[in-house]
Amino acid sequence: MALSCLTFTSDDSSDKIREREFTIGDLPGVLWSPAAGAERSALVLLAHGGGLHKKAPAMWGRAHRLVTGAGFHAAVIDAPGHGDRPRTAHDEREIAAMYAARDAGEPEAPIIVRYNAHLAERAVPEYRALLDALQQLPDIGPEGPVGFWGLNMGTAIGVPFVAGEPRIAAAVFGLHWPDRLAEDARRIAIPVEFDMQWDDEYIDREAGLALFDAFASPDKSLHVNTGRHQDLPRFEADSAVRFFARHLGQPAVSPA
Amino acid sequence: MALSCLTFTSDDSSDKIREREFTIGDLPGVLWSPAAGAERSALVLLAHGGGLHKKAPAMWGRAHRLVTGAGFHAAVIDAPGHGDRPRTAHDEREIAAMYAARDAGEPEAPIIVRYNAHLAERAVPEYRALLDALQQLPDIGPEGPVGFWGLNMGTAIGVPFVAGEPRIAAAVFGLHWPDRLAEDARRIAIPVEFDMQWDDEYIDREAGLALFDAFASPDKSLHVNTGRHQDLPRFEADSAVRFFARHLGQPAVSPA
Repeated sequence: MALSCLTFTSDDSSDKIREREFTIGDLPGVLWSPAAGAERSALVLLAHGGGLHKKAPAMWGRAHRLVTGAGFHAAVIDAPGHGDRPRTAHDEREIAAMYAARDAGEPEAPIIVRYNAHLAERAVPEYRALLDALQQLPDIGPEGPVGFWGLNMGTAIGVPFVAGEPRIAAAVFGLHWPDRLAEDARRIAIPVEFDMQWDDEYIDREAGLALFDAFASPDKSLHVNTGRHQDLPRFEADSAVRFFARHLGQPAVSPA
Repeated sequence: MALSCLTFTSDDSSDKIREREFTIGDLPGVLWSPAAGAERSALVLLAHGGGLHKKAPAMWGRAHRLVTGAGFHAAVIDAPGHGDRPRTAHDEREIAAMYAARDAGEPEAPIIVRYNAHLAERAVPEYRALLDALQQLPDIGPEGPVGFWGLNMGTAIGVPFVAGEPRIAAAVFGLHWPDRLAEDARRIAIPVEFDMQWDDEYIDREAGLALFDAFASPDKSLHVNTGRHQDLPRFEADSAVRFFARHLGQPAVSPA
């Protein structure tokens, strides 16, 4: 990615949150920031789950908590083949293979793991370009601490990204298989909070625990909750914001 | 336990917390309450760890968070053979056996598990009497929701107590082996938050996960952190208070 220049394409503020859509070359993204704040504050990069996009409800919900709960900036881009970005022939083949497996009652996991690893190869340099561009903004700057928060496919992208990115100081991951990720996880030693679902119908317990175990971080926390893959409780989003507030150096305000 | 009458033996208030020591028959305890509040609020029963006592720093720390963070009452009694209570000949023999195992480099766990089960048999009716007595106080009352919070030996006492006590609506447990407890845990279906340490030098991972898994609760959360048995991070105490606030019906105020 030779792209480094960020162009804002919209700028809207509610009473608490400023939302700016942007492009970096062909890459579409959103930056959420405190509406009032002119002073610099920490940044958390988000990555969305498979089949979703940069403005999916989970992204907006996390950004809202990060901005109003801790005064952070939060930014996200569409993953390759997702949201406003075109699908390649490879994307179409893999998505067709996933649906075919589902229709045949066969396990989708091997296809998801393989396809997510492919998407991560494309997305990691894009996240690096995103961070380069955001750090040029005066209200973020090059020195502030930066967090990363991605579950599901966001973990598949985030683990290789964070493993090679010394600017990331703390990360929230979870809800993914260890295959293809454990090796990179062993290179990650920053604080990590990791979510898993005890009754996940796709990812078995041993697989979830194995990925948590792989992180080299001396300071890591695992949060397991009952329920299926999609049932991650909303209070885990509040917990993630407190985690970032502890590690990125800003006190969380009370969740209203 | 035919004892039901609670006698206060001291009454001290700081600007935020009222601390009253009491006895129920021979049973010594402490009740911490909001200094200002005359209205009723929810109660959390605490149980201390092995070798400690009702006013150990962890008890006071948890009570402080419960009172100032959520406006709860918090109460604890000395466990049998602990604090201000005499040891029996049986207590002395088991404690000697633990030290002998430690000195010989042999595992203490089987002795701790066995001794904790014995202490729980004595403590469970005492906790029932404690709850009976506290619910007669006008600022607690018989109807309010009640929580239980005990780790280590506090879990060994709490699991059989809660399994037979329909008045407990939510519980925080952790840091214990499943032996002797899993059967009672399978009778517990209230919300549970469970703490374990990923590098516990006494309780291996499979044992900790097995006890968490045993609870029948449809709503349960496991919090695992890196570090040894004694290294449970303090933020888990804040998490427990938020857990009780979610389930006992009072909003947590911001931890200052």
